[in-house]
Amino acid sequence: MHTIKITDRFFTNYRNLVRDKMIPYQYKVLNDEIAVNIERERNDNSIPNEKSHCLENFRIAAGLKKGEHYGWQFQDSDVYKWLEAVSYSLIEKPDDNLKAIADSVVDLIAQAQEDDGYISTYFQLKCPERKFKDLAWSHELYCAGHLMEAAAAYYEATGSEKVLAVARKNADCICRYFGTGKGQTRGFDGHEEVEIGLMRLYHLTGDESYLQTAVYFLDERGRNPNIFIEQSAAEHGGKPDLSGILSFPKTYFQIHKPVIEQDTAEGHAVRMMYLATAMADVALTAGNTKLYEACKKIWRNVVDRRMYITGGVGSTVIGESFTFDYDLPNDAMYCETCASVALMFFARNMLLNEARGEYADVMERALYNTVLDGMALDGRHFFYVNPLEVTPEASAKDPGKSHVKPVRPEWLGCACCPPNLARLLASLDRYAFHEKDGIVFADLFMNAKAEFTGLTVEEETEYPWQGNVTFRLKTTTARKDAQPGCGARVFAVRIPGWTVNSGEKVRITVNDNPLIADDVICGKAAMLKDGYLYLTGPFEDDILKLEFAMPVIKMSAHPAVRADNGKIAVMRGPLVYALESIDNGTGLNRLFLRDDTAFTWQFRTDLLNGMCIIKGKGYRIPDGDDAVGPEHPAEDSQAPLYAPYSPGVETKAECVELTWIPYFAWANRGINEMSVWIRQK
Amino acid sequence: MHTIKITDRFFTNYRNLVRDKMIPYQYKVLNDEIAVNIERERNDNSIPNEKSHCLENFRIAAGLKKGEHYGWQFQDSDVYKWLEAVSYSLIEKPDDNLKAIADSVVDLIAQAQEDDGYISTYFQLKCPERKFKDLAWSHELYCAGHLMEAAAAYYEATGSEKVLAVARKNADCICRYFGTGKGQTRGFDGHEEVEIGLMRLYHLTGDESYLQTAVYFLDERGRNPNIFIEQSAAEHGGKPDLSGILSFPKTYFQIHKPVIEQDTAEGHAVRMMYLATAMADVALTAGNTKLYEACKKIWRNVVDRRMYITGGVGSTVIGESFTFDYDLPNDAMYCETCASVALMFFARNMLLNEARGEYADVMERALYNTVLDGMALDGRHFFYVNPLEVTPEASAKDPGKSHVKPVRPEWLGCACCPPNLARLLASLDRYAFHEKDGIVFADLFMNAKAEFTGLTVEEETEYPWQGNVTFRLKTTTARKDAQPGCGARVFAVRIPGWTVNSGEKVRITVNDNPLIADDVICGKAAMLKDGYLYLTGPFEDDILKLEFAMPVIKMSAHPAVRADNGKIAVMRGPLVYALESIDNGTGLNRLFLRDDTAFTWQFRTDLLNGMCIIKGKGYRIPDGDDAVGPEHPAEDSQAPLYAPYSPGVETKAECVELTWIPYFAWANRGINEMSVWIRQK
Repeated sequence: MHTIKITDRFFTNYRNLVRDKMIPYQYKVLNDEIAVNIERERNDNSIPNEKSHCLENFRIAAGLKKGEHYGWQFQDSDVYKWLEAVSYSLIEKPDDNLKAIADSVVDLIAQAQEDDGYISTYFQLKCPERKFKDLAWSHELYCAGHLMEAAAAYYEATGSEKVLAVARKNADCICRYFGTGKGQTRGFDGHEEVEIGLMRLYHLTGDESYLQTAVYFLDERGRNPNIFIEQSAAEHGGKPDLSGILSFPKTYFQIHKPVIEQDTAEGHAVRMMYLATAMADVALTAGNTKLYEACKKIWRNVVDRRMYITGGVGSTVIGESFTFDYDLPNDAMYCETCASVALMFFARNMLLNEARGEYADVMERALYNTVLDGMALDGRHFFYVNPLEVTPEASAKDPGKSHVKPVRPEWLGCACCPPNLARLLASLDRYAFHEKDGIVFADLFMNAKAEFTGLTVEEETEYPWQGNVTFRLKTTTARKDAQPGCGARVFAVRIPGWTVNSGEKVRITVNDNPLIADDVICGKAAMLKDGYLYLTGPFEDDILKLEFAMPVIKMSAHPAVRADNGKIAVMRGPLVYALESIDNGTGLNRLFLRDDTAFTWQFRTDLLNGMCIIKGKGYRIPDGDDAVGPEHPAEDSQAPLYAPYSPGVETKAECVELTWIPYFAWANRGINEMSVWIRQK
Repeated sequence: MHTIKITDRFFTNYRNLVRDKMIPYQYKVLNDEIAVNIERERNDNSIPNEKSHCLENFRIAAGLKKGEHYGWQFQDSDVYKWLEAVSYSLIEKPDDNLKAIADSVVDLIAQAQEDDGYISTYFQLKCPERKFKDLAWSHELYCAGHLMEAAAAYYEATGSEKVLAVARKNADCICRYFGTGKGQTRGFDGHEEVEIGLMRLYHLTGDESYLQTAVYFLDERGRNPNIFIEQSAAEHGGKPDLSGILSFPKTYFQIHKPVIEQDTAEGHAVRMMYLATAMADVALTAGNTKLYEACKKIWRNVVDRRMYITGGVGSTVIGESFTFDYDLPNDAMYCETCASVALMFFARNMLLNEARGEYADVMERALYNTVLDGMALDGRHFFYVNPLEVTPEASAKDPGKSHVKPVRPEWLGCACCPPNLARLLASLDRYAFHEKDGIVFADLFMNAKAEFTGLTVEEETEYPWQGNVTFRLKTTTARKDAQPGCGARVFAVRIPGWTVNSGEKVRITVNDNPLIADDVICGKAAMLKDGYLYLTGPFEDDILKLEFAMPVIKMSAHPAVRADNGKIAVMRGPLVYALESIDNGTGLNRLFLRDDTAFTWQFRTDLLNGMCIIKGKGYRIPDGDDAVGPEHPAEDSQAPLYAPYSPGVETKAECVELTWIPYFAWANRGINEMSVWIRQK
């Protein structure tokens, strides 16, 4: 057991927004208390968008109100994700009022639950005869998984047995129903998540049936790629219900082959990442090395070939899906906030399997870029889609880009992302450190005070703006003599992968004595391995300091990434930077860099709640007649669309000072163009 | 009256394919005689794709067969477009067998026609009660327009009164039904075309009611932008039938404002171009200068801002539509063959209004590039969509590009393009010359023998491979003394707009005497105006020679075209060239040019039926580990996705000899990558 208190200024701001704005706001939305300008993510009339109705659905299912279900099959999950975020918030800062509201929600969920443990207000109210019979789209198990996660978190926060009992009763119902045993039904949810929830309940309760059912769901998936079509056909008089199954490829649901054989990230990105998250947990928990090998293959595919520089995943809006290796369009992609949250889940579980810095590097990349981008600086507006290049006119006039919003909407018709973001940010301490085999690992950097069995850690940093991190380490008396494996006598800290980009060495000192190499430092054994520095205690108020040089770096993509050929992106530390036209004028596509760019950076307290911006020399190709020679002088004397290329044309480019802001902070100053990638001559 | 005989080797090949392959093949398809591997253009189950059933629909409507209608609302138009192509073919080369088949089709159409002149097998067989009541989608008038065009052509070819009577009876029915008069119904077709057909009938018959109704349809369009919604609502008990009307913007149908006020090309590209074609015809015929002004605005918008270098139009698959200025993505566009055929119609009608070379230039650009690209060199496979960049993996795995086929399918579920292409190629003589006010204009270049009132012209050229054109001109005795306006004593020849790109002067001689300036040449008045050289006769076997320098030219796009920033396309004469990976290796995106490219070209008789190819020096960025530095060495030691930009990276690029082929000839050697635009350093 451990306690971690985040005192970080950068994240506290976000965590406070979650606690003070998002959680109360979301409750009002769930309870239909406030009119919300709900934005449709696409021109799709089938998407419910007038109200949330979430709690009302529970009240009706509980018999407390009359009425009909409204919303998606997965509407319930919004409540569960809210409850999970509330739990973390209560751990961080107890709040009796909030707990009272949450308790009332728990009561409501309990009242809506059926005697056998089943709960899905959609199916209970709309079509009870179809329970567990439309697994491709039903999201019943998906919702159940979120209930389990929320219940575990709420129990940990408050000790509430009630919500845990509800979740266990639901889990028991699922464990009875599904499986290969006599009288059991074979199947699994079209949207992975219950596997994560079951594992969470298993870790909390030790009930083996939860682990077994999670293993079963993973094992069953992809064995029969036609399972959903066959189920649908069986249930609809021999003809599969075409709505939604046949129109999606099997990869959409990750049912194209057994999960253990899957070696590329396919289909719906959130589904894929949830699946991988569960696989990595089961691999570790059950000691299944084959499953971990599959996880590693999927990881390599995502990280080496299918991930945006921002940690976004999902290259197409159609099916919100992965596409193929190196296909990473910047202006038409999906990069759902939820998918990057889920990539963090996956990365964290990989890290628990094996302490490799690259797992935490990706966690960091996703967090500081796409995940934070999901939320406006006011905590009240949210992106579902996180593009790397936006032209507002394209969003308005190219229907293929109507999902790419140039500013964050107030709420979303399919409201999965804001609560996912809330629970992630509220539980950030779980990503800052992890413990394994008597070693405490510092994975992400933030100001924090943490007590582990045998070790207290105080961390101070100005991350992500500065690359300095200081740890004050103290072995607690009880454990001073403990051996590795019996308590935290070894402290490990990640050396971020991006530090190699600067070409400068990381400076490490213990009590002001520099670490030269893998060696003893200040009387303590030190070792660098797989992106972590291991330092062996005991510690007595020892000060470990790390300094990562944080120059501004031009990054390029693998040459197979067509969308980025001939372009660079600017990074500093873990942050990807972006150009907005509010700072750089319209027509960002007319800008380019040469090799003469000298970057400077400065922290601007007056900008966007305090932000480190970057300035650098760029060039702007003139618009209009100067740029290209005349072919047919048009009547309005504008430049022709096509004209002979003139080798000297770019010598006419105007030299301009460009301003980059952190990618996650774009679109906080109204509608304008944005671009992460810029041409490099 | 005139006769024009095309003897051109380049086009005769295509025209023979149309006559010998396409026309018989299409007849068998229309008649369900052959099993066709019909390719769906998208993953849309609603598209009929098992058979054509076109003639069967007519037989059933005629009462000759029992059965149900099968296919689209506009299925009939395939028959009419086929008949129109047959007509031109019969003019070119009489063929009794073909005429007998066509006569039998005419008989069938006549038998299917109702007593009042109405004909649409879809509505006659499926829902007679809804005739003219679903105008947004019914295509009844659209089909009628094609019937009128076919009838006029078949009458001109064969003197058949029968088909003309059918078309006139249908036109009369439409003229009675629609209008603002008492007892008439207001409305127009969601897909423009009947306006073109009515004008064609008017030009042939002089019947003023056809002109008036065409004028009415144009005038009515866009007056009430809600007309389709209101009609649908009135017909469906107050609720508009949502299928297809509300889901499309008003611009899709060009009903967002009165046509005379429309100054940008909006919506479905074929619809837009058909509308503009009719507008330009009515403007000239009715002497409506305001309408011509509107045409010129639309023209400028298309040509200066919304047209691909290949003469393709339609930037998005969604609604097969125009999007916004300078939005010209190369890999996800539509560029339907039909839309470029229609752009040629529009350009030709603009040329008839005013002899400006740029109208013919666009006609030429569309013809030699997108239109010819619509057909394989075997005359049996067809593109609907004509992309400028194709990655086969993207077509297969990115659902947003599933409409972009890497090879031409054998037939298409919506078979509008092949017959449109057939009628265009079969009637190419109508685009080669035009006559106005006593002047004969040579607009496109091809070997031909033409007799006009007062003038015979023999043209010889190796166009488009060489820029030499020779005309032998002879004023016929009867007209030798005629004044301008009373017979063709003046001959005008277009000086292609692309000739200015070479920087070399066009060499012009008459009987080997060079033309120096606007002056008398060899005793004949000569004048250059708006892209045409005017030469005043009389002529007595005078030889006019033009030599256009045809160097290989790198073209660049207006800097506002995001998709083409930093790239060039290669042209020679009217032809746009493309790179295919079969010649240049896979990964065309890794290629780039510097300013040191020295192009050579050669005619290769052994390649693609004889083709002029271009060679030039390029560079290939290495793939894999050499290209970028290591960040995290991946386990399979592949290059990381993102790594610091290295200024020297492109100095490692390998120098390669690149091979370009004419764009229209790509995809004739199996599935491979293609790109028109290439990076220019």
